[in-house]
Amino acid sequence: MDLKSLVNSIKNFEGITRKNLIKDVTGLLEDTYNIAGRTILGFGDDASALEIDNGQVVLLAADGMWGKLMEADPWWAGYCSVLVNVNDIAAMGGIPIGMTNVISTQDKEICAQIMDGINEGVKKFGVPMVGGHVHPDAPYNSLDVSITGIMNRDDIITSCGARPGDKVLVAIDLEGEIHPQFHLNWDTTTMKSPELVQAQILAMNELAQKHLLTAGKDISNPGTLGTLGMLLETSNVGATVELGMIPRNIAVNWEDWLKLYPGSGFVLTAPEGNVSPITQILEKVNVTTRVVGHIIPEKKLYLTSEGDNEVVFDFCTDRITGIHDENP
Amino acid sequence: MDLKSLVNSIKNFEGITRKNLIKDVTGLLEDTYNIAGRTILGFGDDASALEIDNGQVVLLAADGMWGKLMEADPWWAGYCSVLVNVNDIAAMGGIPIGMTNVISTQDKEICAQIMDGINEGVKKFGVPMVGGHVHPDAPYNSLDVSITGIMNRDDIITSCGARPGDKVLVAIDLEGEIHPQFHLNWDTTTMKSPELVQAQILAMNELAQKHLLTAGKDISNPGTLGTLGMLLETSNVGATVELGMIPRNIAVNWEDWLKLYPGSGFVLTAPEGNVSPITQILEKVNVTTRVVGHIIPEKKLYLTSEGDNEVVFDFCTDRITGIHDENP
Repeated sequence: MDLKSLVNSIKNFEGITRKNLIKDVTGLLEDTYNIAGRTILGFGDDASALEIDNGQVVLLAADGMWGKLMEADPWWAGYCSVLVNVNDIAAMGGIPIGMTNVISTQDKEICAQIMDGINEGVKKFGVPMVGGHVHPDAPYNSLDVSITGIMNRDDIITSCGARPGDKVLVAIDLEGEIHPQFHLNWDTTTMKSPELVQAQILAMNELAQKHLLTAGKDISNPGTLGTLGMLLETSNVGATVELGMIPRNIAVNWEDWLKLYPGSGFVLTAPEGNVSPITQILEKVNVTTRVVGHIIPEKKLYLTSEGDNEVVFDFCTDRITGIHDENP
Repeated sequence: MDLKSLVNSIKNFEGITRKNLIKDVTGLLEDTYNIAGRTILGFGDDASALEIDNGQVVLLAADGMWGKLMEADPWWAGYCSVLVNVNDIAAMGGIPIGMTNVISTQDKEICAQIMDGINEGVKKFGVPMVGGHVHPDAPYNSLDVSITGIMNRDDIITSCGARPGDKVLVAIDLEGEIHPQFHLNWDTTTMKSPELVQAQILAMNELAQKHLLTAGKDISNPGTLGTLGMLLETSNVGATVELGMIPRNIAVNWEDWLKLYPGSGFVLTAPEGNVSPITQILEKVNVTTRVVGHIIPEKKLYLTSEGDNEVVFDFCTDRITGIHDENP
């Protein structure tokens, strides 16, 4: 495989490039994101954190489903709306406690399929959908879901804590299958028990409580390297990653594998001494975990493979979200 | 004025009839809405309540903006997305702590106007927008916002606690103006100081902490009588209301007044002995508060005026949301 063309394909991947608008939008809210003095984490993380008065934080996240997903498979869109939100809370090390949704559709059959998918997601992940809003007269189909979680303030896993010398770990459940219509959806949950799926979420909470990580982020639409890129950008550091060390199900080629959205997948950073307990906690719940490289001070993401070396992102010139730690 | 034609106009008001789909949607989630055992309040209230372990609850609500509002005045849609969500938390007696949003638009100018409106709402209500999701490639403009609040579990103001004999109160800030493009938007906040607007929200928290109410709900798209109808439906009771007692700004005719969405407006129920302290707390923050009638066991909403008497809703045959207390 040609490393250069793989890297070019990743750099131009829509899952990454469509993140470019984020800073344009969040930039408008920079002056007010901490207006009440509770905001510990604002933009740039999988979820935001707001302090409450018992040493805990409330975590908030929201996701909209891609229109293409809604049109092709409303059930799957409903199911995934739960999955992606739960993973946003898990990535912070939090406990997801409830969700709300806004559905726009004129088609009762599509609405029923979406709700059926949501209901299956609720049962699988054990997080209730407790409210929301219906637009019965919208001229389009859309589904937006938000989630709230809770955790101890001192335990939060952020995207901004990676430091030079830390190991970079990729943790992915390798046991799954590609969705028949979406070749970048790596489904690892529909075929598994709620107990195992929920144990995967709680494993991240255990890593958080034990303070084993310096940073973490759930692998989402930008794929494994895009998600790592966002973490590096937020942390103001770089990394070097050896392609062959990234855990992969060999049924999927590298190009697709690096772009796909896994049902349970995280990029993590940690001091070398913590790698062993981290790996044990995640592998106990079927999440394969490998050290794939390390953090460097130079603000670039290098991908190496069999002696070749390519720059995936140079954060001095490229931007993914444009959000940095010193300018939240 | 002809009471019968006024009542007919209210019964057929789109702001009420479009609530009919709610039960079809929430019905699908009835089995799972309390899957984790934390859900104290699910559907049928302005916000849902999830128990956390310090005697508090986390409140969740979500609202989507009407497409018509987005097209005519994106700034106002952004501003209102904050207002309606904050009012949902206020109606429960809670403290709003943070919001997330999902914006879909291809038009950067519209997006900037929406965000500008949101930012103004954040400053006015003192509740930060801490995260969200942008669809830069959606073929439509939409804005969905969710909010999280917090309060003591024992203080929650619900929609389901109204009991026969309780007084029905309507509380509305009468000092405002009709939006130039939307004759049912009664703006009472853009021209007021953040201090007063936030004091109105905190007044509801004071009513909650003092346990002065048996039920309460913020007046939203269904208007004053539609919102009262939803409260009665959820509480499994009826009421009789004297039209002339409802606080009104006489610049607006009755038909529009009963349908409009006020910037700060609530329907409340309480034992007669609590009417005086409730009124004092609300009038201190410019919210005019009047007893307009009382709760009856018969499941109908009667509207009386100058000796005439009409049935607005008969909950044995009509339904607004279809959500009742015994079947959440």
